[in-house]
Amino acid sequence: MKSSSSGRRGPKPKPGTRDNLVKAGLRMFHNEGYAATGVQGIAESVGVPKGSFYNHFPSKEVFGAEVLDAYFDRNEEKLRSVVCDSGIPPLARLQAYFDERIKAFETAGFVRGCLLGNISAEVADHSVLMRQHLSRHFGSWTRFFEACIAQAQDEGTVGRDLPAALLARFVLNSWEGALLRMRAEKSNEPLRDFRAIIFDVLLK
Amino acid sequence: MKSSSSGRRGPKPKPGTRDNLVKAGLRMFHNEGYAATGVQGIAESVGVPKGSFYNHFPSKEVFGAEVLDAYFDRNEEKLRSVVCDSGIPPLARLQAYFDERIKAFETAGFVRGCLLGNISAEVADHSVLMRQHLSRHFGSWTRFFEACIAQAQDEGTVGRDLPAALLARFVLNSWEGALLRMRAEKSNEPLRDFRAIIFDVLLK
Repeated sequence: MKSSSSGRRGPKPKPGTRDNLVKAGLRMFHNEGYAATGVQGIAESVGVPKGSFYNHFPSKEVFGAEVLDAYFDRNEEKLRSVVCDSGIPPLARLQAYFDERIKAFETAGFVRGCLLGNISAEVADHSVLMRQHLSRHFGSWTRFFEACIAQAQDEGTVGRDLPAALLARFVLNSWEGALLRMRAEKSNEPLRDFRAIIFDVLLK
Repeated sequence: MKSSSSGRRGPKPKPGTRDNLVKAGLRMFHNEGYAATGVQGIAESVGVPKGSFYNHFPSKEVFGAEVLDAYFDRNEEKLRSVVCDSGIPPLARLQAYFDERIKAFETAGFVRGCLLGNISAEVADHSVLMRQHLSRHFGSWTRFFEACIAQAQDEGTVGRDLPAALLARFVLNSWEGALLRMRAEKSNEPLRDFRAIIFDVLLK
């Protein structure tokens, strides 16, 4: 990774600016989209000149990859606290995770969706670097679900006809699709459909 | 709809230009994304000045909605010829539709995905007009699947535990999610997962 002392121009990076840029990028990419958000606007939103952005990041693409990491870090915290809580049965944990997400989308008005899904739609064909980060984070996310489903299979609450890894990938991909449709419909129906089919039919 | 004689500026619209613009927009939005594609570039790609674009369309948004219609028209042709072919059993028709789509994505190298899904991710929160078109086309698409699934239920090849409409919505949404993940992974695994779970588990 580029050290912060190797900035190409502008004043010496201020401590905190890098984090502020990533936070602003996360918010703006999630609200407005990747192509619709310019480096200038990101820098302005945290009160630094555009040159300061380039003191921290060699390109928008490298910055975008770091924003994806920051986004998934937050998601991972939720996954660890809810999906890995061994105090409750594995399927109930998985349901609790989705119920919390569904509630959050209802409260927010069915906007934004998942940044990993959005960037997959917008950028995955055009940036190998960002695609690698997307793939890694989708992989980690899947493994949280897989561990949960495998445990439910061990306990006998989910059948063993299909491998836990396949079920986990399908659950995550279908969730991403439900979020897309939610945004087109501005309705929780796609999320409720997802919940009904995944938990009442598939994970039985 | 705006008549072509009400153009605000530039030369009188040439016959064919409007169609060419829509075709170029469809190709460019699908390849590059909505925000990443400018009106200037669309006009240039069909060899007309930017002003000519605005003779035909009052805004990029109105143009985008028409591009979505053109995209779904093509999809609808496929749906009519494959999903509505009463010469073969309903589930086999649905499988044939997805098998053809999976083959096409394999041939293309797992790029582009579905324009309706991409625009849902990028624009659905920001344009009521485009969102209405997305919602309408997703609705029509769902009804093709629903008719097929209902017929399979009548024939007894799919159980009646769940309404055909719910199953159809879930199938379409999960397909959209599989396409997102396909683009992040550049692999047909998400499409194969989709096919396995939908046809070997859900539609049984």
